Amino acid sequence: MDAKTSQNKIAQNKTAQNKTARARIPAKLPRPSKIQLDDLVLANKILFRFNIVDAFGHISVRDERDPKSRYLMSRHIPPGMVTAKDIVTFDMDSNPLTHVDMPQMSERYIHGEIYKLRPDVVSVVHCHARPLIPFGAAKGARLRPLTHMCGFLGCGVPIYEIREAGGMTDMLVRTAPLGKALAEVLGDKSVVLMRGHGATMVGASIQEAVFRAIFATENATIQMQAHQLAINGEVEFLSDEESAKSSKGRNVPRAWSLWKHQITAGS
Amino acid sequence: MDAKTSQNKIAQNKTAQNKTARARIPAKLPRPSKIQLDDLVLANKILFRFNIVDAFGHISVRDERDPKSRYLMSRHIPPGMVTAKDIVTFDMDSNPLTHVDMPQMSERYIHGEIYKLRPDVVSVVHCHARPLIPFGAAKGARLRPLTHMCGFLGCGVPIYEIREAGGMTDMLVRTAPLGKALAEVLGDKSVVLMRGHGATMVGASIQEAVFRAIFATENATIQMQAHQLAINGEVEFLSDEESAKSSKGRNVPRAWSLWKHQITAGS
Amino acid sequence: MDAKTSQNKIAQNKTAQNKTARARIPAKLPRPSKIQLDDLVLANKILFRFNIVDAFGHISVRDERDPKSRYLMSRHIPPGMVTAKDIVTFDMDSNPLTHVDMPQMSERYIHGEIYKLRPDVVSVVHCHARPLIPFGAAKGARLRPLTHMCGFLGCGVPIYEIREAGGMTDMLVRTAPLGKALAEVLGDKSVVLMRGHGATMVGASIQEAVFRAIFATENATIQMQAHQLAINGEVEFLSDEESAKSSKGRNVPRAWSLWKHQITAGS
Amino acid sequence: MDAKTSQNKIAQNKTAQNKTARARIPAKLPRPSKIQLDDLVLANKILFRFNIVDAFGHISVRDERDPKSRYLMSRHIPPGMVTAKDIVTFDMDSNPLTHVDMPQMSERYIHGEIYKLRPDVVSVVHCHARPLIPFGAAKGARLRPLTHMCGFLGCGVPIYEIREAGGMTDMLVRTAPLGKALAEVLGDKSVVLMRGHGATMVGASIQEAVFRAIFATENATIQMQAHQLAINGEVEFLSDEESAKSSKGRNVPRAWSLWKHQITAGS
Repeated sequence: MDAKTSQNKIAQNKTAQNKTARARIPAKLPRPSKIQLDDLVLANKILFRFNIVDAFGHISVRDERDPKSRYLMSRHIPPGMVTAKDIVTFDMDSNPLTHVDMPQMSERYIHGEIYKLRPDVVSVVHCHARPLIPFGAAKGARLRPLTHMCGFLGCGVPIYEIREAGGMTDMLVRTAPLGKALAEVLGDKSVVLMRGHGATMVGASIQEAVFRAIFATENATIQMQAHQLAINGEVEFLSDEESAKSSKGRNVPRAWSLWKHQITAGS
Repeated sequence: MDAKTSQNKIAQNKTAQNKTARARIPAKLPRPSKIQLDDLVLANKILFRFNIVDAFGHISVRDERDPKSRYLMSRHIPPGMVTAKDIVTFDMDSNPLTHVDMPQMSERYIHGEIYKLRPDVVSVVHCHARPLIPFGAAKGARLRPLTHMCGFLGCGVPIYEIREAGGMTDMLVRTAPLGKALAEVLGDKSVVLMRGHGATMVGASIQEAVFRAIFATENATIQMQAHQLAINGEVEFLSDEESAKSSKGRNVPRAWSLWKHQITAGS
Repeated sequence: MDAKTSQNKIAQNKTAQNKTARARIPAKLPRPSKIQLDDLVLANKILFRFNIVDAFGHISVRDERDPKSRYLMSRHIPPGMVTAKDIVTFDMDSNPLTHVDMPQMSERYIHGEIYKLRPDVVSVVHCHARPLIPFGAAKGARLRPLTHMCGFLGCGVPIYEIREAGGMTDMLVRTAPLGKALAEVLGDKSVVLMRGHGATMVGASIQEAVFRAIFATENATIQMQAHQLAINGEVEFLSDEESAKSSKGRNVPRAWSLWKHQITAGS
Repeated sequence: MDAKTSQNKIAQNKTAQNKTARARIPAKLPRPSKIQLDDLVLANKILFRFNIVDAFGHISVRDERDPKSRYLMSRHIPPGMVTAKDIVTFDMDSNPLTHVDMPQMSERYIHGEIYKLRPDVVSVVHCHARPLIPFGAAKGARLRPLTHMCGFLGCGVPIYEIREAGGMTDMLVRTAPLGKALAEVLGDKSVVLMRGHGATMVGASIQEAVFRAIFATENATIQMQAHQLAINGEVEFLSDEESAKSSKGRNVPRAWSLWKHQITAGS
């Protein structure tokens, strides 16, 4: 098969896929609400600004028009470049229902599979935030809450070892089964570390998922310093009760109001 | 009680509280001076710019029109967004005498209770500056002055363990008794670390409190590096006499002049 | 010989050198393509923006008009100041074929000698990126891939000890033999560390060489933290198979699209 | 003596001092050259931009109109705010010959006393660059060159312990004898660390002194990481011969050209 034949074949396959994709799309797919689109675009910009994502990483949210069967996430572009028109609607098997001719995130299964297992989760962030990576790779390390901003870590931070679900891979959650395995390791927690890769965090809103991504990363930086500073590396973390109590309150909307202000003001 | 009844009840309570609050307000409350307002707003911006505060943290100052019974601090918004019209006047029990219909900082008791115990203190900063947090959590660690800019640490930096005053809490200094306990741990010192939370520092002026917040944080960063670099972690700190002598001089106004320039010039 | 005579001699030598240089230049040297020039200038700006290069360091690319016998690289100026008109054409012995009257990079032999030994390499970056330097100097340290973005490190990262090739030098790869020795230590790998100096990385395109420079540096930072965090410094790296598999895919063009956007938008 | 009398007394003393100062000033003090003024102002801005100085620290240069008996340095303001009209001419006893009514740097004796002992030195930087401070305080630490940019450290980096010259002080080099003691500890070296304070570096030009300040600081950061990364903290430094050889060459003007470009372009 020469190069041209091969290209034709790929083009044909793509057309066939697109037809299938279009067939999947409900006749009357309601447009996402402007508020959700604006918040999702803003979330992308905030995550980029605070170095949670770089060219890679993504955030999704359940579509409020049909939260049980659809979610919203950008197409395959860097988060810092996302605009409202790049937001794709997916079904819960992570098939795109819009933008079907465009490349999509290989790892969209992270989002769909978590939504399936966690009805309480409204938004999911996947990222390669640098300070979190050592906690997924260093033997014996354990991410634990050092301040009341990070009480959501108190319930535990599991580590996803992709080798257990997929053997030797390119590390990406490229399939529904790998996504399901990740969702199962996450369990009822807020954050799951991914060895050799990054982390995924969830929230009851876009704002909470973003908050958890930023403050889990802050906690990682502080915790590394605390272990180095301590005699024998011993550190006093928040107790379970302190973690649970400090997870409530006005922190998320207050932080979001600043981040929105910073992005909007370009400051 | 259904949701609507509950909401009504909350609204009624709020109205009742506001009435009480208004009743507390002296008939002729003098306006804060423009200079104090400007300095306090500027202090908020400086603390934000140098990462001492983020969406959280606050700075207060005794109201120069009645320094024994009132202090000034912003309402419940992120420090980086504070303007003169957001500055609230509080009595020393941390009741708002202005802006009574608006949400206030949960931890305003930090400020009022310190002013009660420390007549020499004119300004108080509360923050979650990242490099200070390990010193409140790492077993055996002790924040000590490494340079003449940080001589104010030489008198000792106590650690406030909120469990001793309040048991298992959400870590916040939400009540006058918790604030009083913090003020007592601070004692006659310049800085108190708060385990699992952040730090509070005081000064004889807004400028000095800001200076101490910024340089205590600088010292923390340097000290962590010094311990790691040293054979056996042993470090030569300023002696008590060096600390005391280096706390005087022209440092505060000089630093303030630069910070003001940076904020004003937007550079 | 007085200063003036000495200066005259230098001027004469320079004129002689320039004549020789001009004699070397083919009568019809085709202009580099605009696309290559633009990409090379952009690559300089990206490397500068992400602190891979400072006033020092350089990136070259095979001239697509004659990839076997010529390469393109800026004249002797800081990367952050490079424009299209500063791009020099070199032969594979690293003689300049254009800009012959101007000072050239002392270490251009790094580029020419690697192109001679590695027909698969299209672009070469030489840099002093700070986080890479400890890995060339710390006894027992070894740069290894911690995330799927850095799979290209999995084949091994050799260290070039210039003393073996040149004895006690000023550390610079100032001659073809020193360049050849570096190319031989690099072998078939992607990155070579240079003790007491910096690093050199190669790619099948400008984009890939830039990507490897940036992510090798990211990996170094994360790896230092991981060793410190781990009990006994033990860390789980990508396996050889994971490294090989994760080196493919859409990472390079996606990252490049963001970096280009950031430079172009001035954001 | 009441406050007013005291103030009068201070004012009288100041007038007396100023009269003495004016008496010292030669009748025909030549204006500094514009080139030197511009370079010195630019040096202040570069040192500020690269966090070598903050509100504190200073750089001086011998006055090229009379290099044996005068030097130039800003009056008592933060380096980032210095303009040409703030440049004061001092004699070698560090008496101001211009701007005599204005406050001067307490530590100007650092500069005058080094110029007296080191005829080869044309420019002096005093700073509190953060990464250098641990090397002056950590027991057993020794700043040594890790890259060819820092060969100037190879001759050794002594530490000035002010207690030896002045006992328990406020750490400042406030007098000529303390300045002379510092100059003697510096000896024929390029950099002297000051325990509990900062560092002082010298050069044969403004450009070289700035270069050494910036790269000594870079070396400190890298060296701390290298020790942490190494098995047993063992690191391969530049040999004496490598240090000496790499201290020559085109590095200083090339770096300066970039820094000037960055400041001028406001980039």
